[in-house]
Amino acid sequence: MGTSKDSSQELYDGLVAHKLIIPVGVQGAFGRGAVFEDVLARFDALVSRVIAPDGAERMLFPPILDRQVFEKSGFLDSFPQLAGSVFSFEGDERAHAQLRSRIREGQRWDDLQKMTKVVLSPAACYPVYPSFAGDVLPKEGRLVEMFNWVFRHEPSPDPTRMQAFRVHEVVRVGTPETVIGWRDMWLQRGVEMLRSLGLPARPEVASDPFFGRGGRMLADNQRAQELKFEVVIPVVSEEKPTAVCSFNYHQDHFGESFGIHTSEGNVAHSACLGFGMERVVMALFKTHGFEPEKWPQETRRRLWP
Amino acid sequence: MGTSKDSSQELYDGLVAHKLIIPVGVQGAFGRGAVFEDVLARFDALVSRVIAPDGAERMLFPPILDRQVFEKSGFLDSFPQLAGSVFSFEGDERAHAQLRSRIREGQRWDDLQKMTKVVLSPAACYPVYPSFAGDVLPKEGRLVEMFNWVFRHEPSPDPTRMQAFRVHEVVRVGTPETVIGWRDMWLQRGVEMLRSLGLPARPEVASDPFFGRGGRMLADNQRAQELKFEVVIPVVSEEKPTAVCSFNYHQDHFGESFGIHTSEGNVAHSACLGFGMERVVMALFKTHGFEPEKWPQETRRRLWP
Repeated sequence: MGTSKDSSQELYDGLVAHKLIIPVGVQGAFGRGAVFEDVLARFDALVSRVIAPDGAERMLFPPILDRQVFEKSGFLDSFPQLAGSVFSFEGDERAHAQLRSRIREGQRWDDLQKMTKVVLSPAACYPVYPSFAGDVLPKEGRLVEMFNWVFRHEPSPDPTRMQAFRVHEVVRVGTPETVIGWRDMWLQRGVEMLRSLGLPARPEVASDPFFGRGGRMLADNQRAQELKFEVVIPVVSEEKPTAVCSFNYHQDHFGESFGIHTSEGNVAHSACLGFGMERVVMALFKTHGFEPEKWPQETRRRLWP
Repeated sequence: MGTSKDSSQELYDGLVAHKLIIPVGVQGAFGRGAVFEDVLARFDALVSRVIAPDGAERMLFPPILDRQVFEKSGFLDSFPQLAGSVFSFEGDERAHAQLRSRIREGQRWDDLQKMTKVVLSPAACYPVYPSFAGDVLPKEGRLVEMFNWVFRHEPSPDPTRMQAFRVHEVVRVGTPETVIGWRDMWLQRGVEMLRSLGLPARPEVASDPFFGRGGRMLADNQRAQELKFEVVIPVVSEEKPTAVCSFNYHQDHFGESFGIHTSEGNVAHSACLGFGMERVVMALFKTHGFEPEKWPQETRRRLWP
C-alpha cells in the first residue's frame, strides 16, 4: 500500500518485543497483550465519555453477519477482495473420514466445505440497518453506538493492516440535513479528541479501495462528493499516514436497501463514523513510545482520568 | 438437543421484548443490547477480580485463527460439523462481473470463493498453545487469561445456543500435578462464584458432542476419565440444564501437538476453563427476571460492587 516496509517492520518488532502483540502464523491475526488491551479499553472509555451527551442507543453485534444482509449491502460490488464468507462441513461419516485423511496428509479440504448462511462482518455498521428495516424513524432520527469486530481479507506484514480488528462505531440515520450536520460536528470533534491525546491527527477527504479498473472512477466520484473523511496519523509512514478514524456518508443507500423512512416519509439517509481501535492504540505507541507509564502527562490524564 | 422448545422460545421472546437482544435474520447471530452488555461486562469484571490473585498473563485473540493451527488442533477429528472456515474472493474483473450478476439474480456464488489461511476460532484457548510452541515452561508452568469470540456452526432457535459468543477463559499449562490441582481448585471456585450470584449452579461430569457413530465411545471415554466438567444452570429447561462454565483437561494433547515441555523435560499437560459469557448473562435474566434493578441485593452487590 505504498507504506515503507522498514517502518512497518520496525513497529511490528517493537510491539512484539514489548509484548504488546503476540505473533501468530498468519499475517494480520496476531494476539493482543495485557498492556495493549488496557490502552484500548481506556481509549474506548474516552470515546464513550465524549459520545455520552449525544444519548446514542448502544448495541453490540457478533463478528458474523447474516449473508442475506451482506448480499444486499452492496459490499461485494465494491470490495469483493476484502470480504470473508463462512463455510462449514455438512457431510456424513464417509465424508468425515475423507476430511480427516486429507488433513493428515496435508491435502486440500476446501471442497468438503459448504457455504453457510453467515459471513464475517466487513463493517461495524452493517448489522444495524436491517434492525431498522421497514421503520419510520422518529423525527430526530436514530443514533446508535457499537463496538464490533470487523474482518478484511488483506493479510499484510504491516501491523496497522489487520485481518480482524475492533471498531467503536457511531451510526446516524435520519434526514439529509440531520446526517450532514452530524458529520460537520464530528469532523471537528474526532480530530480534537485524537489531538487531545498528543497525536498529530489531521482530517482528510478520502476514498475507499474500490476493486478493479472501474474503481478509480468510483473513488474519484466519492472524493468529489466528499462522501468519505478520515482522520489520519503518521504511524508506519510520514507520506502515507494511517487512517484511525473514518467517516462515511452513505446518502440513501442503506435507507433504500433496507426500507428505512424518515418521519416525513422520505427514504432515510445514513452515515457512520468509526474509530479503528487497534490503530489508535498503535498510533499512541508510535507517537509516545512503547511504555505508557512514560507517556506525556496530558495524554495519561485523558486516558486514566 | 432435547430442550423444551416452548421454554427456549419464551426466553428468546423475553430477551427481545426487553431489548436485551436484537433479532437478526439468521439463528444464533443476534445483536446484544445495552443492558445485556452492561451485565456481561459486570460479570466479566467479577471473573477478573476472582482470578486476579492467581497472577495470570492476559491475552486477547481475534475471532480468526491460523488455519494450520486449527488443522493441528484435532478439532476436525471430533467436531467437523461445528467448525467454520473463511473463504474469500480472489478472482479478476471478469470473475467479479460474474459474482455481481449471480448475487443480483439470487444465484449461488460459493464456487467463486477460495479457502483462505484463516478459520473462525472454535475454542477460546486454541491460539495460546502455538504461542508456547517449542517452549520449556518455567517450573510453575503458565497461566493465561483470555477473552475471545468463539464460533460454532450450530444455528438454533434456542438463544443459549449461539453461532458466535464470548468466552472468558483461563488456560493452565504445566506438569500433570499442577494442572490437576488447578482443576480441583476451580471445581469448587466456579460453582461458588455462580452461586454467589444467586444462580442454582451445580457441577457435572460432562462430555463433548463428538461427531458420528464413533462419537458415543469417545464421549463415554471422556466421562470415564473425568476429562470434562461443566457447571450447569437450568435456563431453558430443568431436565437439560445449560452449561455456563466448562472445564477441559487435555492431558498431553496440545503439549504434544505444539511441542511444549515442562522444566523437567516432559511433554506439558494442559487444561482450560471458560465461562460462556452470554449464557451466564441469560442465566441471570432467567433466574432473577429481565430487569437488573430488581435483582436480589446480594446479586447486585457482587456485580455492581
